[in-house]
Amino acid sequence: MRVLGVDPGLTRCGVGVVEGVAGRPLTMAGVGVVRTPADADPSHRLLAVEEGIEQWLDAYRPECVAVERVFSQHNVRTVMGTAQASAVAMLCAARRGIPVALHTPSEVKAAVTGSGRADKAQVGAMVTRLLRLAAPPKPADAADALALAICHIWRAPAQNRLQQAVARHSVHAPRTQATKGRTA
Amino acid sequence: MRVLGVDPGLTRCGVGVVEGVAGRPLTMAGVGVVRTPADADPSHRLLAVEEGIEQWLDAYRPECVAVERVFSQHNVRTVMGTAQASAVAMLCAARRGIPVALHTPSEVKAAVTGSGRADKAQVGAMVTRLLRLAAPPKPADAADALALAICHIWRAPAQNRLQQAVARHSVHAPRTQATKGRTA
Repeated sequence: MRVLGVDPGLTRCGVGVVEGVAGRPLTMAGVGVVRTPADADPSHRLLAVEEGIEQWLDAYRPECVAVERVFSQHNVRTVMGTAQASAVAMLCAARRGIPVALHTPSEVKAAVTGSGRADKAQVGAMVTRLLRLAAPPKPADAADALALAICHIWRAPAQNRLQQAVARHSVHAPRTQATKGRTA
Repeated sequence: MRVLGVDPGLTRCGVGVVEGVAGRPLTMAGVGVVRTPADADPSHRLLAVEEGIEQWLDAYRPECVAVERVFSQHNVRTVMGTAQASAVAMLCAARRGIPVALHTPSEVKAAVTGSGRADKAQVGAMVTRLLRLAAPPKPADAADALALAICHIWRAPAQNRLQQAVARHSVHAPRTQATKGRTA
């Protein structure tokens, strides 16, 4: 399974590709950051994020895109840009028919460190260890994107079983695949 | 001047096209709502909003797109969807090189009713009068989209003068057009 993790942001949008399956060692296929200038027009920044995400989708052809679920109560000043950048990532994936999964920051932290309240350094250290990297990916947004991808690979089996159970027991279940992100 | 106003939302995204110039009677070219099912996958909802906005851009070829500026302090429960739908509208316009202007709800209300704290009924009544319609557009999102377009046409001359002044006095002014939305 190849997953593109996206830590959304307008100034820095972290992107990381991880390959593997739950229960076996994972491999990093790529990591980076899509940046847009803070003084550019907001619509042009979104366009730049789209171009960046499209390049990553073209280069790595992931089977799934895992995006951080944005909450309005955190970082009120930047949350609008974060929500908008996440929309662009979700849209790029949906346009190609790639399933999108949303994971909360605490789900991601809990998946890679065992604690939903781990700090950035701890997440970076575990990403480095789990992917057997020489050094923690910089900036933190890049490490967070890899953590999202790892979280998704590890959580996907449980999510798939849940979806299949829901589909079996639901009268109206026209699109199991389409609801993937909502059970994240 | 032909302006597409967008009142962003995932469940109902209001769209309205207004033609005219400040100081002369305005004309409505079209009005409607792009809807997406609340039970669909979030990424598929964004895709449906994109398809809807693209159809309006194809059909009306506006010179400018005016989008409501979303604030995080309002309607915390729905603000994420609103921010994401607005990102899609901004992206669709930017992709075609169409300038995007952002206006706050109070700017829009003040423009069409004289009060930044007017209620929806008052905005609907003034939109009906200003565009010489037989009845207020329904739902309110459609009327709000028209109000956004009217607001933009009326504010555009002042904004353009401001941009030109900024461009004249700025050492680094590589893209006056691109900063249009930020002075809104």
